[in-house]
Amino acid sequence: MDAAGLAEQITELLQLCRLLWIAIEHRDGWAAFAHWIVILLHCRARKEFFVAEPIPFRCNFMTRKVYLAGPEVFLPNAREILDRKAALAREAGLLPLSPGDLEIPHTNSKRERAAAINAVDEKMMIQADAIIANLTPFRGIAADTGTAFELGFMCASGKPVFAYTNVARDHSGRVSDLYGGAVAYDAEGRLRDPNGIAVEDFGLADNLMLHAGIERRGGVLIIGDAARDALYTDLAAFKTCLAVAVEKLR
Amino acid sequence: MDAAGLAEQITELLQLCRLLWIAIEHRDGWAAFAHWIVILLHCRARKEFFVAEPIPFRCNFMTRKVYLAGPEVFLPNAREILDRKAALAREAGLLPLSPGDLEIPHTNSKRERAAAINAVDEKMMIQADAIIANLTPFRGIAADTGTAFELGFMCASGKPVFAYTNVARDHSGRVSDLYGGAVAYDAEGRLRDPNGIAVEDFGLADNLMLHAGIERRGGVLIIGDAARDALYTDLAAFKTCLAVAVEKLR
Repeated sequence: MDAAGLAEQITELLQLCRLLWIAIEHRDGWAAFAHWIVILLHCRARKEFFVAEPIPFRCNFMTRKVYLAGPEVFLPNAREILDRKAALAREAGLLPLSPGDLEIPHTNSKRERAAAINAVDEKMMIQADAIIANLTPFRGIAADTGTAFELGFMCASGKPVFAYTNVARDHSGRVSDLYGGAVAYDAEGRLRDPNGIAVEDFGLADNLMLHAGIERRGGVLIIGDAARDALYTDLAAFKTCLAVAVEKLR
Repeated sequence: MDAAGLAEQITELLQLCRLLWIAIEHRDGWAAFAHWIVILLHCRARKEFFVAEPIPFRCNFMTRKVYLAGPEVFLPNAREILDRKAALAREAGLLPLSPGDLEIPHTNSKRERAAAINAVDEKMMIQADAIIANLTPFRGIAADTGTAFELGFMCASGKPVFAYTNVARDHSGRVSDLYGGAVAYDAEGRLRDPNGIAVEDFGLADNLMLHAGIERRGGVLIIGDAARDALYTDLAAFKTCLAVAVEKLR
């Protein structure tokens, strides 16, 4: 074997190591690894010069990981709902990452436990390629603040963002309901509640940073209309959102 | 002049252009520009070879920009409160960026206006070096969802995060109040509301993603205790938070 041949062999070996590492580090990496081996053998068979370019990290044929954010982690049947959502995501060809997925390492205090959960959830968001956030109002008129935080986190990470809500009534409508309809436009045309505090009336599902933040980067917020007793268990809007996400992530 | 001398002159000119651009694009860039000129003249005077390394973009002597997030943008006297917070930040040596700071470009629809505001606020967050988020509960038991989104955005951006709340009662206490005290621990020791929905009881001010997310990356969440009629105008907790932020941003 000449020097050039040896160099090529070493390059191939390094590439294999790199792809093996990707396969171990990222659960969906095996597909990329297998694909790469096929290309390698194909090139060998045709005695073509093997192109030692690594496969781009996020290939289309790799399963996209989607972080399933939402307040359903607090439900009495959280595990069941999270598993149903995860199963639907898998059926749609995505790899679901749910906040309740992983065991939280043992901690010595409640505060440490909170930090550990935060660390696990942020790590999942960093691993994820996209988010589907459940913005259904939670214990009040607005989305769960943890979910809002996670949506902002994924927007800043430059990843595709998708969301849904199971409440059809929009933000200004819900604020109006909260005050028994006592909201009114001021002299400058700004909607205000009885305390004079402005009410966003853009026809959006929640605070504009969430809804406009999603739409401005090409995502969607699906507006569902679930029964009152199925606000966190009805998955119709989630399914629609999932279908859109799959289409956009192609 | 020989070729090497000419090359050096051109390099210097390009560096000057680059720093001039920084000075124009970023309001605090003039300090960096002036500093650089001083180094240039100093090297010339000592006939030392001028080191054409650009100054690192975020120098300690440059004024740090802090994004002042919070629901006070909705107050009847929003401008006054935002200006007071901005003045305090300036006195503390920081450059404040407030969501209400900029004129929103004209738009043809409410939806477009929402998108324009989102774009302006996100741009400010990208320019900012840190955030101080007002997590005082807003129209319910939890922080403003827009502020929660922005906190998550800055966490993902890897920037220092600080926050405060003007309500001393913690998250689980507020949920308990919402249900007239009807929250109880289940057999597994998990606090639940009357609907069986779990209540985070980590002694935190809001959902753990916010509070633990701040503390886990070295930030602080200052717990204030403002009078009920001054929940959004009392700036005591903000001042404490500002002092901590200045110390940590040094």
